Amino acid sequence: MILPTVDYRRGAVEIIDQTLLPWEERIVRLAGLEETAEAIRSLRVRGAPAIGIAAAYGMLVALENFLVERLRPPRGYLPAERLSAPRGYFFDRAEGAPVLDAALIDVSDVRLRLASARETLAATRPTAVNLSWALERVARAAAAAGSDPAAVCSAVAREAFAIHAEELEIEYAIGRNGAVFIRDGMNILTHCNAGGLATAGYGTALGVLYAAWEDGKRFHVYVDETRPLLQGARLTAWELAKRGIPHTLLCEGAAASLFAAGSVDAVVVGADRIAANGDVANKIGTLGLAVLCEKFARPLYVAAPWSTFDLDTASGRDIPIEERPFAEVVSFGGVRTAPDGTIAYNPAFDVTPASLITAIITDRGVLEAPNSLKINKLTAVK
Amino acid sequence: MILPTVDYRRGAVEIIDQTLLPWEERIVRLAGLEETAEAIRSLRVRGAPAIGIAAAYGMLVALENFLVERLRPPRGYLPAERLSAPRGYFFDRAEGAPVLDAALIDVSDVRLRLASARETLAATRPTAVNLSWALERVARAAAAAGSDPAAVCSAVAREAFAIHAEELEIEYAIGRNGAVFIRDGMNILTHCNAGGLATAGYGTALGVLYAAWEDGKRFHVYVDETRPLLQGARLTAWELAKRGIPHTLLCEGAAASLFAAGSVDAVVVGADRIAANGDVANKIGTLGLAVLCEKFARPLYVAAPWSTFDLDTASGRDIPIEERPFAEVVSFGGVRTAPDGTIAYNPAFDVTPASLITAIITDRGVLEAPNSLKINKLTAVK
Repeated sequence: MILPTVDYRRGAVEIIDQTLLPWEERIVRLAGLEETAEAIRSLRVRGAPAIGIAAAYGMLVALENFLVERLRPPRGYLPAERLSAPRGYFFDRAEGAPVLDAALIDVSDVRLRLASARETLAATRPTAVNLSWALERVARAAAAAGSDPAAVCSAVAREAFAIHAEELEIEYAIGRNGAVFIRDGMNILTHCNAGGLATAGYGTALGVLYAAWEDGKRFHVYVDETRPLLQGARLTAWELAKRGIPHTLLCEGAAASLFAAGSVDAVVVGADRIAANGDVANKIGTLGLAVLCEKFARPLYVAAPWSTFDLDTASGRDIPIEERPFAEVVSFGGVRTAPDGTIAYNPAFDVTPASLITAIITDRGVLEAPNSLKINKLTAVK
Repeated sequence: MILPTVDYRRGAVEIIDQTLLPWEERIVRLAGLEETAEAIRSLRVRGAPAIGIAAAYGMLVALENFLVERLRPPRGYLPAERLSAPRGYFFDRAEGAPVLDAALIDVSDVRLRLASARETLAATRPTAVNLSWALERVARAAAAAGSDPAAVCSAVAREAFAIHAEELEIEYAIGRNGAVFIRDGMNILTHCNAGGLATAGYGTALGVLYAAWEDGKRFHVYVDETRPLLQGARLTAWELAKRGIPHTLLCEGAAASLFAAGSVDAVVVGADRIAANGDVANKIGTLGLAVLCEKFARPLYVAAPWSTFDLDTASGRDIPIEERPFAEVVSFGGVRTAPDGTIAYNPAFDVTPASLITAIITDRGVLEAPNSLKINKLTAVK
């Protein structure tokens, strides 16, 4: 099962609007560049892999709109027909080779429009590495496609679809590699949302659980609500409910008592960045769980795509931690929770030292007791 | 500085309505038994010592209303005069000896009314030990006052005021005993609200900080917001702001990263129940902080009145833990945070083993590295 996190369908980027979850499951069609940029900016689509894919498809939609402006529609072309074109076909690919009247279009105009779309999309979440990486891939594919406008269009479409498909393959690989650690009857604690809603639709930490579940293993998941933005309560609980995996929500403060009661057999989390020595930056609250795992002798698994490793960063000390606005802590759902003027400490991430991590599960393989040496070895594999 | 948590003033129980904090600071006058009972029931006044005092004053107000019904008002008595009577005077004590026309009143009626008031008040929060203890004290004082209605009334008033004054003395003693552990420049983390709003007006864990602050020590407090009910964000931040003590709010998940950064020098919390071996039941989330204190070699202080010790409970394992409704976890401020049907784990307390506690600070003295032997020794002191 793939969640409808982000996809390209019949002329538009389709996303499930995550700002409405879990209250409403609304699929939004983003038929233009501006709509797509707005959706990324306002976190309707979120999570590093997911926004990379959304941006790639945003380029495709921008290009498509440009062609519609410039070209006579193909013979018999009607909006309704375009809407019914099968998924994965760019513009008029349903009719075979691109129907571009080359006389009406200049490749430099195509490139200008692509460059402008890239700029708009790149500015939506400037610190998101996956976003700029996906845009870079699409731009390179377009640049390598030569001077035929039709070839450039096809290259953009192919690259966008490839990015999505590859991300999905990576998630499946993480799931397969991690599923071995999940046993029947386990109680597994997870934090934040490292699931299909943050990715191409399957997930990293949750992908491990999904792969195990698809293998027929049966277990129970404890879900940290993950203050301040409640991704656990809003998104992870929703995903697990969708798949019918039994789960129980808790506030972060209640985790220790679960460990003390022997009710946690393993912790599985995602990662935002992994340093060359195996230190892991992940959603704030992960380090606390890592310390509990050590105290109560429970394994801590980190599941992340290989692209999460930043080998230029020597250790966790060198990972810059984003501090987010006070407002997230001093209010919720429009209701203020603290007196006016209250100052808050609101880092988005914390750093868990490699020494507290049982294994890092990647698409390339598993690093048990991760360290620089093992990471270097796996780097050389590709 | 004493917070206006609960007091008796000019014929009514006065409380600051804690359900409105921190949004509004409203002092509510509870001039009758029913209003007082409702305020306790609906958590307008909360915290074990505070509701004990509110209940004792509730008895006083019930009695006063009874007398007003039965007696001719004293000569010249006007509601306005009653309103201007100085604090601490019961009914007409401002005029010296109680002006009761004994012919108009029967002591058995007084006792009946007191018994009925006690029943009403006791039913508001049936599991609160302080509540029934305070009601018991007032009832005993009334019983011991003999057959003169005036003497019974005076006894009720004296006992209610005594309960309040004694609680306050206990809090001051805890503050004095604990202040020695607070040093200039410290960063102190606290959890939930063990302050003046939960007590007679000064506090236990926060009382320690207030005593140190009054001694001229200057420090900074980190305040756990304390999900699900956010007592840290709503109440502790409000109290600290009132006193001008610099503080920073955080979500529970962010505490570990503070410890890792060396930004926490000590943790001070309250207690809901302490077992004979020194294990401490306190607000959910305390155990997680205790584990962080151990991991990062920081002291954990528990501040609580001697009455919190339950010597009939051998260890933390024997302390029953109240599980509270899912609703507190799956919603906030009327906004649902998790999908419909989500199950939640929502214990009100967790148990921190004595081995993780640096010292328990009580009004009778300080128990460093608490254990049964030391607790027994201090029990014998009184």
